Amino acid sequence: VITFLSDYGLADGYVGVCHAVIARRCPAARIIDLTHAVPRHDVRAGALALRDALPYTPAGVHLAVVDPGVGSARRALALAAGGGDDGDDGDRTLVGPDNGLLIGAADDLGGIRAAFELTPSAEWLDPLSATFHGRDIFAPIAAAIADGVPLAQLGVPVDAALLCRLETRPPQWDGDLLTTSVLAIDSFGNVSVDAGRPDLERLGARAAVNGAAFARAATAFADGREGELLMLLDSAGRVALVINGDSAAEQLALAAGACVRLAAA
Amino acid sequence: VITFLSDYGLADGYVGVCHAVIARRCPAARIIDLTHAVPRHDVRAGALALRDALPYTPAGVHLAVVDPGVGSARRALALAAGGGDDGDDGDRTLVGPDNGLLIGAADDLGGIRAAFELTPSAEWLDPLSATFHGRDIFAPIAAAIADGVPLAQLGVPVDAALLCRLETRPPQWDGDLLTTSVLAIDSFGNVSVDAGRPDLERLGARAAVNGAAFARAATAFADGREGELLMLLDSAGRVALVINGDSAAEQLALAAGACVRLAAA
Amino acid sequence: VITFLSDYGLADGYVGVCHAVIARRCPAARIIDLTHAVPRHDVRAGALALRDALPYTPAGVHLAVVDPGVGSARRALALAAGGGDDGDDGDRTLVGPDNGLLIGAADDLGGIRAAFELTPSAEWLDPLSATFHGRDIFAPIAAAIADGVPLAQLGVPVDAALLCRLETRPPQWDGDLLTTSVLAIDSFGNVSVDAGRPDLERLGARAAVNGAAFARAATAFADGREGELLMLLDSAGRVALVINGDSAAEQLALAAGACVRLAAA
Repeated sequence: VITFLSDYGLADGYVGVCHAVIARRCPAARIIDLTHAVPRHDVRAGALALRDALPYTPAGVHLAVVDPGVGSARRALALAAGGGDDGDDGDRTLVGPDNGLLIGAADDLGGIRAAFELTPSAEWLDPLSATFHGRDIFAPIAAAIADGVPLAQLGVPVDAALLCRLETRPPQWDGDLLTTSVLAIDSFGNVSVDAGRPDLERLGARAAVNGAAFARAATAFADGREGELLMLLDSAGRVALVINGDSAAEQLALAAGACVRLAAA
Repeated sequence: VITFLSDYGLADGYVGVCHAVIARRCPAARIIDLTHAVPRHDVRAGALALRDALPYTPAGVHLAVVDPGVGSARRALALAAGGGDDGDDGDRTLVGPDNGLLIGAADDLGGIRAAFELTPSAEWLDPLSATFHGRDIFAPIAAAIADGVPLAQLGVPVDAALLCRLETRPPQWDGDLLTTSVLAIDSFGNVSVDAGRPDLERLGARAAVNGAAFARAATAFADGREGELLMLLDSAGRVALVINGDSAAEQLALAAGACVRLAAA
Repeated sequence: VITFLSDYGLADGYVGVCHAVIARRCPAARIIDLTHAVPRHDVRAGALALRDALPYTPAGVHLAVVDPGVGSARRALALAAGGGDDGDDGDRTLVGPDNGLLIGAADDLGGIRAAFELTPSAEWLDPLSATFHGRDIFAPIAAAIADGVPLAQLGVPVDAALLCRLETRPPQWDGDLLTTSVLAIDSFGNVSVDAGRPDLERLGARAAVNGAAFARAATAFADGREGELLMLLDSAGRVALVINGDSAAEQLALAAGACVRLAAA
């Protein structure tokens, strides 16, 4: 199995040609498209989507490409993860650029067992474009790994401690006030914030959002009246601000990365 | 084979993670995405798309999720259909919410042979979210059925006569006038109305649409001049109002569910 | 392997039902979606996308449907190509309408070895719609070919020299001035023009675009400052006008088919 996540969108043939390259190199590989609608060049959103999805996928090769630095000196990576004693169902290899996209997901799978910088080899397509490493490097390398080629033949070992990491701003409680940030907004306008079940419990039945609107604690969309602002645990286990039948992001004027203050009320 | 239809869209990772869950539970299952562009929460449109598509699919498990009531008390269903003496090519099982989404398609496949309400089991994902039963209940159940688990192990029998059904407003002829409604509008603005070949023949060469524009009977798009309003049998065998190179829905100001009066002229 | 390219989009169930039809006729066939976002009825754009993609795909059946003439007298084709002495990896068969969509890609694969006009057979779906030959003719024929049915059983031989071809306007150099045209614009606004590596080298370090903006020669997006217009070789080996983080098409007011004059400067 090769899972595939990118910011390529489906409005061009970029995803299709990567599928074709994989099928040519490793016909037996099954490809699962996780999503290709990561906002263009938004490494943080891609990293989050990858972390959220991988626990649900079979073990295998996890190809992820959100790569604003394509063609520059940024490194290309293959990371071995999973397969530990914690009952995960097998070895997993993450393939993609060294810009923080892969590392959070690898941490969640039990940490990085080995990291390799991909180096030019006969697996890379020739000619190699400067703008589409998804097709020319990452897809064929993912296929080669799925076909059983050892990572040591595809690159050189690098120190996992020196890989690029995304900065994070951890949520903070101050009395009744939680200061946190918007992690993601989905296409329905549901706002996913950096907070979990214990935070939701501490907020109680009702919270002021940024000192303005009030959100009522709920379990499901269907608990709300039309137009009512709810806070609930979303399918990734995070606190989400949602409005049944409307866009909470629009009503609250929130974008990804924005600061959110939730005050128990 | 598992076919999959939903209103999740492709702008988020919802479809991808359902694929992943299925591949984990039943690696041998092949998934065919029928469409994920059903208008959000439009059970009627989803039911129609499912009815139109299933006669063309191989027999198997048919997963369909358009589920505005997720997290509420609405039941989750698995319906056995097909496999009768009428030459259909095998048993089919429909999986989805009890809101009318599945039942029209099941009727078209020869009727429901057995209906089961899905009940909590080890097949359901744990933890179970309140907002994403596609991932946590319907996808793994579809995979379990594809893997050979009998329906009786996944739920309890229910009376098919008591399942939710969508209300329908049947088309009516009054002399030369057919009063009917818009069933669907596709992304090109073609308007599919609740009428078939005999209705088209009875309308003759030309019909007034809602007392205003005239539509000429035709066979194919290419029969019309640029901008000409045509009425023809669409690929689902229904009367469609179309304009070559334009949106008939926009020109006629018609939306799904709208009333349409067609008068032979 | 069956690759599939169309202008159906993913906003309706058209692509899904074609997958279903193929899976029913040839369950062993693997389908690779190249793209379904060809601009509606834009045969030229579809032909280009097909040419660009096929060199990356495994050999097999290549289904392509951009078919404004569906339901008219335009012929349906299956073209045998590839499999020559030039090291291509196997026989390829292109299936689609006779409107110029397939022929450029077939030429690039070493030329047409045999051309057949598809004629009614038991492989065509019954009833046959007048508006959706993708589902009723092209998809089942592609599946039949993948299943091993010889082309001679599906149609009659036709003279390849008499197939429809798209007119092309070749690029022209006049001293330092290259007059050419826009071949395609992708969803990021990158403008692909009909010119290649030798043209880029002849233009040198900088070129005036249509006598107005200046484009700097570069290798990758990351070479440009925010907002800077670059010209580089894109992933199809063509000269592209791009702006890092912006739409070059919008800034230069260029559309597909537009004339572009590039003057070394």
